[in-house]
Amino acid sequence: MNPRHDLDLRTFASDNYSGLHPEVLAALAAANEGHQVAYGGDAYTERLDDVVRGHFGPTASAWPVFNGTGANVVALQAMLPRWGAVVCASTAHIVVDEGGAPERMGSLKLLPVPTPDGKLTPELVDREAWGWGDEHRAQPLVVSITQTSELGTCYTPDEIRALADDAHERGMRLHVDGARLANAGATLGTGLAAFTTDAGVDVVSLGGTKNGALAAEAVVVIDPDALVGGIAAMPFVRKLSMQLASKMRFVSAQLLALYDGDLWLRNASHANAMAQRLRAGLEAGIATGELPGLGLTQPTQANAVFATLPPAVADRVRARYRFYDWDAAAGEVRWMCAFDTRPEDVDAFLVAVREELATP
Amino acid sequence: MNPRHDLDLRTFASDNYSGLHPEVLAALAAANEGHQVAYGGDAYTERLDDVVRGHFGPTASAWPVFNGTGANVVALQAMLPRWGAVVCASTAHIVVDEGGAPERMGSLKLLPVPTPDGKLTPELVDREAWGWGDEHRAQPLVVSITQTSELGTCYTPDEIRALADDAHERGMRLHVDGARLANAGATLGTGLAAFTTDAGVDVVSLGGTKNGALAAEAVVVIDPDALVGGIAAMPFVRKLSMQLASKMRFVSAQLLALYDGDLWLRNASHANAMAQRLRAGLEAGIATGELPGLGLTQPTQANAVFATLPPAVADRVRARYRFYDWDAAAGEVRWMCAFDTRPEDVDAFLVAVREELATP
Amino acid sequence: MNPRHDLDLRTFASDNYSGLHPEVLAALAAANEGHQVAYGGDAYTERLDDVVRGHFGPTASAWPVFNGTGANVVALQAMLPRWGAVVCASTAHIVVDEGGAPERMGSLKLLPVPTPDGKLTPELVDREAWGWGDEHRAQPLVVSITQTSELGTCYTPDEIRALADDAHERGMRLHVDGARLANAGATLGTGLAAFTTDAGVDVVSLGGTKNGALAAEAVVVIDPDALVGGIAAMPFVRKLSMQLASKMRFVSAQLLALYDGDLWLRNASHANAMAQRLRAGLEAGIATGELPGLGLTQPTQANAVFATLPPAVADRVRARYRFYDWDAAAGEVRWMCAFDTRPEDVDAFLVAVREELATP
Amino acid sequence: MNPRHDLDLRTFASDNYSGLHPEVLAALAAANEGHQVAYGGDAYTERLDDVVRGHFGPTASAWPVFNGTGANVVALQAMLPRWGAVVCASTAHIVVDEGGAPERMGSLKLLPVPTPDGKLTPELVDREAWGWGDEHRAQPLVVSITQTSELGTCYTPDEIRALADDAHERGMRLHVDGARLANAGATLGTGLAAFTTDAGVDVVSLGGTKNGALAAEAVVVIDPDALVGGIAAMPFVRKLSMQLASKMRFVSAQLLALYDGDLWLRNASHANAMAQRLRAGLEAGIATGELPGLGLTQPTQANAVFATLPPAVADRVRARYRFYDWDAAAGEVRWMCAFDTRPEDVDAFLVAVREELATP
Repeated sequence: MNPRHDLDLRTFASDNYSGLHPEVLAALAAANEGHQVAYGGDAYTERLDDVVRGHFGPTASAWPVFNGTGANVVALQAMLPRWGAVVCASTAHIVVDEGGAPERMGSLKLLPVPTPDGKLTPELVDREAWGWGDEHRAQPLVVSITQTSELGTCYTPDEIRALADDAHERGMRLHVDGARLANAGATLGTGLAAFTTDAGVDVVSLGGTKNGALAAEAVVVIDPDALVGGIAAMPFVRKLSMQLASKMRFVSAQLLALYDGDLWLRNASHANAMAQRLRAGLEAGIATGELPGLGLTQPTQANAVFATLPPAVADRVRARYRFYDWDAAAGEVRWMCAFDTRPEDVDAFLVAVREELATP
Repeated sequence: MNPRHDLDLRTFASDNYSGLHPEVLAALAAANEGHQVAYGGDAYTERLDDVVRGHFGPTASAWPVFNGTGANVVALQAMLPRWGAVVCASTAHIVVDEGGAPERMGSLKLLPVPTPDGKLTPELVDREAWGWGDEHRAQPLVVSITQTSELGTCYTPDEIRALADDAHERGMRLHVDGARLANAGATLGTGLAAFTTDAGVDVVSLGGTKNGALAAEAVVVIDPDALVGGIAAMPFVRKLSMQLASKMRFVSAQLLALYDGDLWLRNASHANAMAQRLRAGLEAGIATGELPGLGLTQPTQANAVFATLPPAVADRVRARYRFYDWDAAAGEVRWMCAFDTRPEDVDAFLVAVREELATP
Repeated sequence: MNPRHDLDLRTFASDNYSGLHPEVLAALAAANEGHQVAYGGDAYTERLDDVVRGHFGPTASAWPVFNGTGANVVALQAMLPRWGAVVCASTAHIVVDEGGAPERMGSLKLLPVPTPDGKLTPELVDREAWGWGDEHRAQPLVVSITQTSELGTCYTPDEIRALADDAHERGMRLHVDGARLANAGATLGTGLAAFTTDAGVDVVSLGGTKNGALAAEAVVVIDPDALVGGIAAMPFVRKLSMQLASKMRFVSAQLLALYDGDLWLRNASHANAMAQRLRAGLEAGIATGELPGLGLTQPTQANAVFATLPPAVADRVRARYRFYDWDAAAGEVRWMCAFDTRPEDVDAFLVAVREELATP
Repeated sequence: MNPRHDLDLRTFASDNYSGLHPEVLAALAAANEGHQVAYGGDAYTERLDDVVRGHFGPTASAWPVFNGTGANVVALQAMLPRWGAVVCASTAHIVVDEGGAPERMGSLKLLPVPTPDGKLTPELVDREAWGWGDEHRAQPLVVSITQTSELGTCYTPDEIRALADDAHERGMRLHVDGARLANAGATLGTGLAAFTTDAGVDVVSLGGTKNGALAAEAVVVIDPDALVGGIAAMPFVRKLSMQLASKMRFVSAQLLALYDGDLWLRNASHANAMAQRLRAGLEAGIATGELPGLGLTQPTQANAVFATLPPAVADRVRARYRFYDWDAAAGEVRWMCAFDTRPEDVDAFLVAVREELATP
């Protein structure tokens, strides 16, 4: 089969516009041929459990799934009784970007809290963390945060520890949507445990797809006691959620390519660096007055830059490089870098922004 | 990454113990690099729609998903109102092998009918196709059949036409779980339309994974009027069912590798031929008395052979080649061939069966 | 308000065609006036708990709900994890008469087993009680039986004990759909505990409506350990299942009218006696040849008689006294007696049957 | 049965602490005796349809259910495809008081919007009414308002008309949670159609329980085209939602007692008048300085008064007359009057408030 697209094309739309990292592709090839037990009884999935324990500590286990929505809905179902609810940011992926899957497929109730920067705090959690024992109220038993957040911000280990302590004191559990957990590791310069296991996190949705895989995420259960029914629940919840891969060796092989070694960090560091390069260019332009009408709305702590600019200008830039509006009413856009974004892509994009802003 | 398993290992357990066909792997590589619009706005998914129309006719459209359970639950949700039910064989995958996903995730009611050979007939359907208008009864509005069936049998085009006509006369629709649709094409020696579109089928779950892909299936909607809400329902139902791939180009590329050309047929024909080789060997051995205690319980019309043999013998054979019991109480086992089963694997397996049957 | 119907009308259609027993109506009046805490914090609901403990033993608790479908779905949800399934007779109300509510509202999987007489046995249960630990199979963790059954048959205490023992040995729990539990008490001549608590039953759906109440059933939890999450789950499951009455005092008052005293037994004994009178009349007529073409298909162990007769005759009888077909294809009908069926109604109905059977 | 409670007790906790209006009890008695077809085939349910058409116009139909949560979840399920969402006030009963039933039982996604007074406006709706066609976003296809609102405020007909027009222009439908619709009629001094049918409302949850019934609400479908699947959907959705009463004549009889005549208006007018009496007394006391520390936080447009007072005082008042905190953090309480609240109850309560506020 020949390519049907321009292999040189780059956008600033989303990290899932990117393809596979060559090492991931090589891992698929290496895991191929011969027969392996389906549904997870293979050597790659077995190894993945070891690798995940290396990252998240000896109690951790890995449950590969297909995509991020699947990881979140499987994790939250496993953590909650039928009457449970999830306190989360109103910008959380589970709230705004999963087509209602948590409610419809997971029979979950979400309790969203507005935040300025996509990050919850114990004070914000407390707005919805109440009413235990009242049968009229879906019971808030899990806090879910996103690391790095949908707004490109990054929790510090201390911030997560504070959320975990607050949750645990109230009998709640802490889930992390880690579709971009690797980017947080790159930002914080620590291992993954420093801001998960060591900070009191109970369950993580560990991302692979946005960081160079094809379709590979995993629910990582750090504390099995955080699950209703314990770890024995996981195979059943994953299966009934239609997230059990038959040829799981290939899902696990993708995750091994990333996490059994440092590809997770290399890829995420590169994506973050490209976002910093973009931000630096934008800030320099703002400082020199070359980018009139441009504003920056969030700190860049991962691989995204959030900016405001006149809609007509945005549309002209978009005609050259695809990206998404974040808040159309506010003229806010999101520019996202990926593991395969090149410095020259960033530089050319900066030129495009400057040119279009300069055009009346 | 190095392989972690014996690349030479073959089993008779399931077609999903196999790996990727090299052409599928090559297709992943060819679709890689550069950016493509996520969630299906890519050139590969666009091409897939053309290819599917080539197979299933001009009204067809393709909706790639991750796995067979996902395909079935998405298809049936889209075809049914909240009060609908599905008439199906009691051996159907949706009944026995999906962990309750149709009920739990799809809010569907299944109305299973026992069959001798995994195949429904209009008469069998009629046992559960009644009670329309009675609010106490979940309304039977879809018939779902599996082609080739879970028992390795294959519907003829006429048999499917009879089911479709019967269903349509009653205001019902016909769904085909086609996880092994390619094997039926190989058996029948026709194109896929001959026993789907041309036979009155409304919606197909089109398989890829069992036939050489990694994780790729598609809901093929042949008649959009068969969907509650029409074709506009499909994107939403797929998304809320957690079956929307972000990097969909790679799911579509796998399906293109199979169906944009004749790899689907080559792979399925080979798997079927291996099952016929196995059956022929078994029948010859039975005829000559070399296989005492062995019986064959279903015709071999696809890539599976169902047999009975003493449990102790079965266990000794299993120690040499992995396979599954089908009905342990009856001493019935299933031997399944895949696209990568080699003639010498079959021959060696026949030797193993003969040797173990000969051992007291 | 004046009556809008013929107060003298009687049918043999269903026990829920009947109205309220005068003592139930009086109980509503007695509980009226003044304020009482809503949602169950009232004196009548408190008393009901005592009464239920009197019947079912000291660990029992009562959870009033609106209707039988609600009671069953609340009970089974509380007893099962998200991956659980229920082994039941294929004629069970939960299978055929609840519009798919167990699946859709409860996210439950049902595993129906055909039975000759509506009653399960350990052997019949075993047909579906297998596959624990296999994530592909919804896990059979509850057996649900109906007492008296939908076919008018009654389990003996020993039969229930055998089912309970068998279930418990396998780690399963036993639920009883007791919409007509009172009729069983009348048949067996024992208290309710003799064939529930003392026989190993874990949870009961206790009926009121069919036995003279307006809309009043209760989930009776005999063994709180049978619930996922224990007894604390009950308020939440009932509420989220839309079965929590705000003015619960009136639901409880109905149940008190029946069960705080012997009205449950008086009503059920009368309904049973009317069915025996009907059966005796039919058997006598069969013996004398006065009822040509009439057959009896089930024993009459509660308040229903199942018979076969020519469809045209059935239709003529039905024009005089409403009743339902049970199995139209087999010419089988169901004749049901209620607490308010009068001896003269039975006698007149027998005349009608005789007259219509005699008409060519 | 004798009363188990103080018939003279009155509270200000909720209108569902009240009992049955004597005319409702009489209606139950009048509908009793004789047999009537179960599940709605009775003369009372037939009459109810006529009565509802009298109130809501010739296209309306009535679907009796047990409780308000049931009415809302049935109505919204019938109005929405599997991918639909509901824009509503963040204080809506469906959001905060139904234990997650809309999500869990209805598979609905709610999109709550904060409001100052419990009332939506087109501008507030617009905050969540966007994203049609985007598969990632649950599709906002229904606006649900509560009349009178959970904050005791009342929409004018013009305000509802504006919401209906705005919704319809966007292809959305308008649902009214009318658990206290009668109170709005009393406040506005119009018939029920003036602010429902004539204002463009599509479907109403019509209340009975809070206004003197036992357990009786109805989904009133004004525009059958507002339902996915049309009016034929209603019997099925009601049944599968466990809201189909077998002895429906008694549910309908309660609603007839209220709405076939003017009892609905008499009861609601009285409850509203008692709230006005309470408010007048509080305002007078505030004016004279007799109620130091007391504030009023919402207009009193129905049967509730919202006030702030020191928590310790509130607790002492509560020890004399039960009521609920509304916003404990803000020291806000809700005082609710019912159809059976007597003027002397209000006056005595005012004394209690005054006395406790005066106590240091």
